[in-house]
Amino acid sequence: MKKIVCIPDSFKGTLSSQKICDILEDKAKKHFPEVEVVSIPVADGGEGSVDAFLTALGGDRITVTVKNPYFEDMTSFYGLIDNGQTAVIEMAAAAGLPLVEDRKDPSKTTTYGVGQLILDAAKRGVKKIIVGLGGSSTNDGGCGAAAAVGVRFLDQVGCEFVPTGGTLKDIDAIDFSGRSKLLEGIEFVTMCDIDNPMYGKTGASYIFGPQKGANKEMVEFLDQGMINLCEVIKKDKGMDLSEVPGGGAAGAMGAGMIAFFDSRLQMGIETVLDTVGFDKIISDADMIFTGEGKLDSQSLRGKVVIGVAKRAQKQSVPVTVIVGGAADADIDEAYDMGISSVFTINRLPEDFSVSRYNSEANLGYTVDNIFRLIKSAARA
Amino acid sequence: MKKIVCIPDSFKGTLSSQKICDILEDKAKKHFPEVEVVSIPVADGGEGSVDAFLTALGGDRITVTVKNPYFEDMTSFYGLIDNGQTAVIEMAAAAGLPLVEDRKDPSKTTTYGVGQLILDAAKRGVKKIIVGLGGSSTNDGGCGAAAAVGVRFLDQVGCEFVPTGGTLKDIDAIDFSGRSKLLEGIEFVTMCDIDNPMYGKTGASYIFGPQKGANKEMVEFLDQGMINLCEVIKKDKGMDLSEVPGGGAAGAMGAGMIAFFDSRLQMGIETVLDTVGFDKIISDADMIFTGEGKLDSQSLRGKVVIGVAKRAQKQSVPVTVIVGGAADADIDEAYDMGISSVFTINRLPEDFSVSRYNSEANLGYTVDNIFRLIKSAARA
Repeated sequence: MKKIVCIPDSFKGTLSSQKICDILEDKAKKHFPEVEVVSIPVADGGEGSVDAFLTALGGDRITVTVKNPYFEDMTSFYGLIDNGQTAVIEMAAAAGLPLVEDRKDPSKTTTYGVGQLILDAAKRGVKKIIVGLGGSSTNDGGCGAAAAVGVRFLDQVGCEFVPTGGTLKDIDAIDFSGRSKLLEGIEFVTMCDIDNPMYGKTGASYIFGPQKGANKEMVEFLDQGMINLCEVIKKDKGMDLSEVPGGGAAGAMGAGMIAFFDSRLQMGIETVLDTVGFDKIISDADMIFTGEGKLDSQSLRGKVVIGVAKRAQKQSVPVTVIVGGAADADIDEAYDMGISSVFTINRLPEDFSVSRYNSEANLGYTVDNIFRLIKSAARA
Repeated sequence: MKKIVCIPDSFKGTLSSQKICDILEDKAKKHFPEVEVVSIPVADGGEGSVDAFLTALGGDRITVTVKNPYFEDMTSFYGLIDNGQTAVIEMAAAAGLPLVEDRKDPSKTTTYGVGQLILDAAKRGVKKIIVGLGGSSTNDGGCGAAAAVGVRFLDQVGCEFVPTGGTLKDIDAIDFSGRSKLLEGIEFVTMCDIDNPMYGKTGASYIFGPQKGANKEMVEFLDQGMINLCEVIKKDKGMDLSEVPGGGAAGAMGAGMIAFFDSRLQMGIETVLDTVGFDKIISDADMIFTGEGKLDSQSLRGKVVIGVAKRAQKQSVPVTVIVGGAADADIDEAYDMGISSVFTINRLPEDFSVSRYNSEANLGYTVDNIFRLIKSAARA
C-alpha cells in the first residue's frame, strides 16, 4: 500500500463525503503509516459542491452580492479553480431551498442570482463554468438566470419581464440578442444527476414542486407554464427540449442551462472526475475507496460509485466500496462494472432509525477492519 | 492463499457452525480455486457436538438403546473418533430437553442414559471419553449417570435408589465401590462453557431450573437437594465441589462428572482444538476464519473466537472474524488477543427481528467480499 485514493459520495443524511475521506485517511495511516492518501470529497452539484472542488483542487472562494430567490440582495459565492480558468457555481448558493426558509413558493422564486454569479465569473475571464444543480427553491426554467445575463422575455403585448414559475405561461417571445457577449466562448457544463424531463407527470413541477411548497393546484399551474416555456424556446431558438433527460432538474434549470447558456448536462461524478484529473491520479494507486449511503440498482445508473469504478476498471485499479446498505439487485453487475469488493458499515443488526446515529463510529470500525484485513492478508 | 482453516462457532438461532463452514469453503474456492480449506465446525458440547466432531475428524456413530430422561428406553448415540480410542458423548442425546417435550420436570428427570452411553464406550475399550454438557432436561447432579455405572446412592434407612432432582435431598450416603472397573484408566474430559456453581442463587437450580420447567417453589426445593448432594460428596469422597466453577452446568452434571467420573471440566473450544490437533493444522495456514453470533466482552472469556485467536497468535497466523454483531466493549483487547480483523454480516441497517431471516444470504455476501478484497489487495 503506497498510494490510495478516497472518493466517496456522501452517505445521505448521516455523513458528508469530506467526513468519510477524513476517516479513511485516518485509518489508512494508522495501519500503513507511509501510505499516500489522495482525498477527493465528491460534489454532486448541490450544496457543498463548491467547497468540495476547492478542497480537492485548491482555488479561491469568490464572494458576490446577488439576488436571492425573492430578488433581495444577499451575499453568495462561487469557486475559482484551475488557476482561475474555471468557475464552479452551485445553484443552491443563490436559489437554494434553505434560502427561502418559511417562504417556500415556487411560483415566485427566481434563479436570477445564479445568472449574476455566472456573469461575475465571466467578467473574470474564465474559460469554463461548471454549474451544479440541486437543492433549488425555484421552478422558473432558468429564466431568472437568463434574464440576469441579458436574455429578454416578452409577454403578449411586448412588455419585458423576468419570469418566475408562476409567470412562465405569460412568455410569448424570447429575445436572445441581448445576452452578454462576455459569455461567448465559455464552455458550460451543468452537473445533473437526474433524468426528469421539463414537464409532465415526471417533470419538474410534478416531481419536485411539492417539496418546494406547491400544492396540487399550483403543481398543475406550474406545469402548464413549463409547457409554454418549452414551446417558446422551440419557436424562438429552434430547440425542442421537451424530452431531454434532466431538462426538469432543479425547477427545469437543466433545460434553461441548455437553452440560455448552451450548456451540456453531465453526471456530477463525471464532471468531478474530469475536473480533478482522476485518470492520472489513479494511474499509480494501489486501491481506490469509494462508497455511498446505499448500493442498489440506482447506483448502476452512473452515480458516484459506478462512475469511479468504470474509470478504475480501465486501469485495473481495485475499487473497495463502503456503503451504509447493499440491496440484492444487480450486485453481480456491479462487480462486472469494476467494483472489487463491497463492505457495509452496520456493526449491529439495528434499524436505520437507530444505527444512523452511529454512522461515524460504524464507518470508522469498518474501515479500520478493512485495512486490518489487507495488512493481515499481505502478511500471509 | 494456499490454505485456510474455517472454525466458526454457530450464530445462535440463525446459522450452524457447519453451515458457516460450507459457505466459507464455497466462497473461498470461488475466488481461490486452488485453496485448501480445512473446515472444523465447532461443538460446544450441546446438541450437534458429536456430529461436529465426526465431520471434522471422521469416525463412527454408535447407536445404543439407553434410558431417556423418564427411564424409558430410547435409541441414542455417541461418536467414536481417533481410531476408536476416544468416545464423544453429548449429554443432550440421552438427557436433552427436547426429549421430554411437554413433560418438563427437573425434579423427576434423570441422566441415567448418559451413564449408559459412557459404559457402552468403556466396554469398547476407549482410552478417553469426552462428554459435552448443555441442553439438559435434568437437575440430578449426574447421580443418574453415576448409578448407571454402578455408583450406589443410599437413603437414611440404607435403601438404594436412583436419585433425581426431587430426591437428591434423600441421599444419605454414596458408595463408590461398585463403580464399573471398565472406567478405570479412562481419561474423562467434560466440555463446559459456563461458570455457575452447583447451588445457590447463581447455581444450577436457580439459573437453569426455570427453563427446564421448575416454578419458584420447585427451584428452592431443587437447590436444597443440591446442597445435600454436595455435602454427601464431601463426606463420602472428601471433595468440596461447592465453589467449583461450572459445577452447576447442565443440572450440576458438571459436578457429577468430577465426583463420579474423576473428569476435568474444560472449555468446549479448548477440547475441540486439542482433539482436532489444531496447532498442527494451522502451522501452514495462510488465514483462519472464525466467528460467532455476537462479538462482545463475553467473547473474551474463552469462547470460540478468542480460543482460536490465542492459538493462532502463537504461530502468527492471521485470524479474520465474521460476526452477526460487534459491540463496542473491549474490541481493542480482542485485537491484542490475536484477532486480525472483524467483519459483521449486516448488509442493510435492519433490526435483528428482520435480518435474522437473511443471515445465510448476508453471511454469503460478506464472506464473498472478504475474499474479493483479499484478492484485489494481492493484485495491488
